[in-house]
Amino acid sequence: MIITSLLLRRFLDLYQPIVKLGQIQSILDWDLNVNLPPKGAQARANQSAFLSELLTDQWNNPELSQQLDSLLGQDGLSDQERRLVKVIHRAQRFYRLVPKDLIVKKKQTSSQAFMAWHQAKEDNDFESFRPHLAELVAIDQLMANHLGFTDNPYDALLNQYDDGLTASFCFEVFSQLQPKLTELTHRIQQSSRYQPTHPLTDGTLVFATEDQQKLGLFVLRKMGYDAAAGRLDVVPHPFSTDLGWGDTRITTRYLSHDPQSSLAATMHEGGHALYSQGIPEEMYEVLSGEQDLSFSIHESQSRFWENQVGRSPQFIQFLTPLFQSFFPDQMHSVDTETLIRVFNRVQPGFIRIEADEVTYPLHIMVRFDIENDLINNRLDAKDVPDAWRQKMQTYLGVTPPTDRDGCLQDVHWSYGNFGYFPTYALGTLYAAQFAATMKQELFLDSLLPQGEMGPILGWLRHHIHQHGPLYSPEELAVRVTGHKLNPQHFTDYITQKYSDIYQLAGQPPTE
Amino acid sequence: MIITSLLLRRFLDLYQPIVKLGQIQSILDWDLNVNLPPKGAQARANQSAFLSELLTDQWNNPELSQQLDSLLGQDGLSDQERRLVKVIHRAQRFYRLVPKDLIVKKKQTSSQAFMAWHQAKEDNDFESFRPHLAELVAIDQLMANHLGFTDNPYDALLNQYDDGLTASFCFEVFSQLQPKLTELTHRIQQSSRYQPTHPLTDGTLVFATEDQQKLGLFVLRKMGYDAAAGRLDVVPHPFSTDLGWGDTRITTRYLSHDPQSSLAATMHEGGHALYSQGIPEEMYEVLSGEQDLSFSIHESQSRFWENQVGRSPQFIQFLTPLFQSFFPDQMHSVDTETLIRVFNRVQPGFIRIEADEVTYPLHIMVRFDIENDLINNRLDAKDVPDAWRQKMQTYLGVTPPTDRDGCLQDVHWSYGNFGYFPTYALGTLYAAQFAATMKQELFLDSLLPQGEMGPILGWLRHHIHQHGPLYSPEELAVRVTGHKLNPQHFTDYITQKYSDIYQLAGQPPTE
Repeated sequence: MIITSLLLRRFLDLYQPIVKLGQIQSILDWDLNVNLPPKGAQARANQSAFLSELLTDQWNNPELSQQLDSLLGQDGLSDQERRLVKVIHRAQRFYRLVPKDLIVKKKQTSSQAFMAWHQAKEDNDFESFRPHLAELVAIDQLMANHLGFTDNPYDALLNQYDDGLTASFCFEVFSQLQPKLTELTHRIQQSSRYQPTHPLTDGTLVFATEDQQKLGLFVLRKMGYDAAAGRLDVVPHPFSTDLGWGDTRITTRYLSHDPQSSLAATMHEGGHALYSQGIPEEMYEVLSGEQDLSFSIHESQSRFWENQVGRSPQFIQFLTPLFQSFFPDQMHSVDTETLIRVFNRVQPGFIRIEADEVTYPLHIMVRFDIENDLINNRLDAKDVPDAWRQKMQTYLGVTPPTDRDGCLQDVHWSYGNFGYFPTYALGTLYAAQFAATMKQELFLDSLLPQGEMGPILGWLRHHIHQHGPLYSPEELAVRVTGHKLNPQHFTDYITQKYSDIYQLAGQPPTE
Repeated sequence: MIITSLLLRRFLDLYQPIVKLGQIQSILDWDLNVNLPPKGAQARANQSAFLSELLTDQWNNPELSQQLDSLLGQDGLSDQERRLVKVIHRAQRFYRLVPKDLIVKKKQTSSQAFMAWHQAKEDNDFESFRPHLAELVAIDQLMANHLGFTDNPYDALLNQYDDGLTASFCFEVFSQLQPKLTELTHRIQQSSRYQPTHPLTDGTLVFATEDQQKLGLFVLRKMGYDAAAGRLDVVPHPFSTDLGWGDTRITTRYLSHDPQSSLAATMHEGGHALYSQGIPEEMYEVLSGEQDLSFSIHESQSRFWENQVGRSPQFIQFLTPLFQSFFPDQMHSVDTETLIRVFNRVQPGFIRIEADEVTYPLHIMVRFDIENDLINNRLDAKDVPDAWRQKMQTYLGVTPPTDRDGCLQDVHWSYGNFGYFPTYALGTLYAAQFAATMKQELFLDSLLPQGEMGPILGWLRHHIHQHGPLYSPEELAVRVTGHKLNPQHFTDYITQKYSDIYQLAGQPPTE
C-alpha cells in the first residue's frame, strides 16, 4: 500500500513507537519460549510488565488519540488508507476503554497464573490453579464491561480477536457442525478400513529428530517459506511469531515416535509464517503486531497448510518417497495408501493439539461452552473440571481420566485469553471455504503430487495475504469466496474426503 | 547491599526504566548475534535505535537529574549508598554532557559502519570502510569535546570505559611492558623445547563440536557457572552478556582442529559470566548494565580464568585425562607436558583474538597508538593500514599481508568504540596482580590439579564480585592487593611461567 495522505503519514510517525514496542515484546516472548534459563523467569516477567506499561502509555498519548479521531472523519483518504485507520482505531479501542490499572493488573495476575498453571498441570492439581482462574475470569468480566456489549459480555472478549465476532454466531455455527462431526467420526470408526493404531505412530518405531527437522525444513521451503527471513526452532508448545520485517520465526516440536505429528505442527506454523511474510513491507511497518490481525484469518492460513495441503491424499503422494528416503529403515514398505490413513486417522481423544481434522472443532466447542458460562456467571471456576468431563462425553464420547488431560491441558486460560479458542475452529472453517474457491481456479490434484506449491502460495498471497488486516473476516470471505462464512464447505470437504479414504458405506447424508 | 535511605529508594524507582531498557537492549543484542536471520537486520537496527532514544530520554528526565544531584550532596547515606550514587552519576554524565542528536547520529552511523565493515573485511577492501571510520572518529572527537578533558581528547573516551583512565597512564604502562614482552617472546622462540606447530592445533586432527561443547560445559560448571541462570551458545565472535538477574549468557566458538582455542574462549567468557553472577541480586537490580561497570575489572575476571587458571600447568594436569577421555582417538598418547606447551605456545601472529598470553598486550598497543593518533588528528583514516603494518612490525616483528588480517580484523571501530581496547590489556595486568595476592592466601598448586575451583571462585566473589562497580579499578586494586596497578606482577608471572615451561637459559632479566 502506498500512503499519500500527509495527515496519515504524520500520524503513522507518531504511531511508530507502538509498532516498535510490539516487535520488541515479540522478541522477548520468543526468547522466553525458546531460550530462557529457569532462573531468568522473574526478570523476564518484570521486563514484559515494563514494556506493557510503556505500550499502554503510548496508546493513551492524547495527541495520538486526537489525530486518530480526526483521521476517522477525514475526506480524501484512499480506500486502503481508510481501512488502515479503522484497523488502528479498533486496536486502540482496548486501551481507550480499559483503565491502565486493569491492564497492568491482568498482566501481573496472568504472570502468576501462568506459573501456577504450569505447576498445577504437572501435579494434576486443579485446586491450586482455581483461584487464579477465578481471578482472571473476574478481570475479563470487568474488561468486558469496559469494552461494552449488547447481549453477552463474552461478545466483548470474542471481538478482541475477531472484528465483530459474537457468541451467538459461534453458537449457530457450532450447533450446525457438532452432530455432523460426531456422526462422521462414528461412521469412520465403523469402517472396515479403519485401523486404530499403526507402527508409524504407536511408539514402536523411532525417527531421529535431525531427520525430522531436515524433512520439515524441506517442506517449509517447498511451501515458499523464506528461511533467510526467519528460523525454525524447537519448543514444547509450537507457535510462530513476527519479530520485525524480515524476521518471522517458526517453532515446532519433534515426537520421536510420530513424524507425521511433527510435520503437521511444522506445516501449521509455516502457514502462519507465510501469511506474515506475505504482508507487504510498507503495510507490515505500520502494523502493531497481532492486535491488528484477525485471528480466524491467521488460523485459516495455518489450518489450510496443515490440513487442506498437509493431510491431502495428493500431497501425501508427494511425501511418500520423501518419507521413504529420510527414514529408509522404518518406511521402506510403507505405501501412499497406508500413509494417507495414518495422516487421516480419526479418533476422539483427550488432547486438543493431538486431535485429527474431524474431531478438532469438537474440542473447541467444549472450551467455548465453558468460557461462555464462566463469563456469564453461569459456571463457577470450581466446577470447571466437572463441566469439562460432561462436555467431553457429550461431544466426543470420551471422558479424560485426569484434569491434566482435561481442563488443565491448555495454556490459554492462564493468560486470561478468554474468547481466543473459537477462532481456532473458525479458522478451520475459513480454510475449507477458501480452499473450495481456490480449487475452482487451481487444479490441486496435479500440483500437490508434484510438491508444486508456488501457485497455491501465489493464490493466497493475492487473495488473502496482501490485504493483511484491512478487511474483517466477514468482508474478506465475501471478497474472496462471494459469501460470508458457511460451515457447509467444511462439512462437505471432510465428508467427501473421509468417505473416499475409508470407503464409507452409502452416500454421505445431505442436508 | 541493603538500601535504607528513603530518598535513594525513591530515586531508584525513578531509575528503574533505565535498568529495564538496558536489559531489553541486551536481549535484542544477544539475539542479534546468536539468532537473527539475515533479512531481519534492518528491523533490528531500527528497534535498537528506538530503544536508544527511549533510554536517552529517560537519562534526560529532569526529575531524575534533580534527585540524583541532591543525592550527591546528601548526608546520612551509608558508604555503599554513596558509592552507588556516584556510579549512577558517572553513568549519567555521558547523557548530561552529550547532546541527544549526537548520540542518535552515532547510533545510526555505527549501524551503517558495522555493515560496511563486515563487507569490507570479507572483500579485504579498506577503502570502502574508510569514510565510515573517518566519520566515527569525527563523532567521537565531538563527543570528547562535550565530555571534557585536560590534556588529551582521547582521555575523555578512555574514561567512558574505566573511571579515571588516561592515555598517559596507558602509555606509561605499555612502555614498560613492551620491551619485556618482545624480549621474552624472542627467548621462548629460541628455546630448544619450542615447537612451532603441533598436531593438536595444526589442522591434521578433527575434534567433534558436540564433544568440545560437552567439555566446555563441564569446565564451566567446575568453575562454578550456574547453568540454570544462563546458557552456552555458538557465535563467530564470542561474548557474554547479562539479560537480567538469573540470565547471564555465554557464547563461544568451536574450531574443529583446535580444542584448546575453543576451551580458552569458553573459559574467558565464563570468567565474565561468573563476575555477573557474583554481583548481589539487590545491587544487580539497580545497575544499568555495562555502563555501570569497569571494563578493566570485568576483563580481569575473564583473563584470570582463561590464563591464570586455564593455561596454568596445574590446571592442564587436571585437563589431561579429560581431554584423553573426550577425544580418545586423537589424544591417547598426549601427556600433560605436551599439553602445557600446546596451551602455552608463544608466537607473534596477525590476529589479536588468536594471540597467546605473552604477545596479546602487544596487539593492544598497536590499537592504542593508532586510536590516540586518530583522535588527536595526528593520523588520517586513510593512513590507518600503513600505520597498522608499521606498528605490527615494530611491536610483534610481523606484517599482515592483508588488511583483513590487519586493521579490518576487529569489529570495535565499526561501533565507534575508541578507548575500549586498552581495557583488554589492563584487564590482563589486573588479573596477574589479583592472582599474586590470591596465591598468598590459596595454595593453587594443590587445588587446580584436582579441578577444585570452589575456593578460587569464593575468593573472587569475596574480594571482587560482591562489590560490583562500587570501587574504581584503582580503588579496588588498592583494597584487594594493597597498591595500585603495577605491571610488574604480570611480567614477573609470565617470565617465571615461561622460563619454567621452556627451561629458558639463564635468569630472567631483572629490573
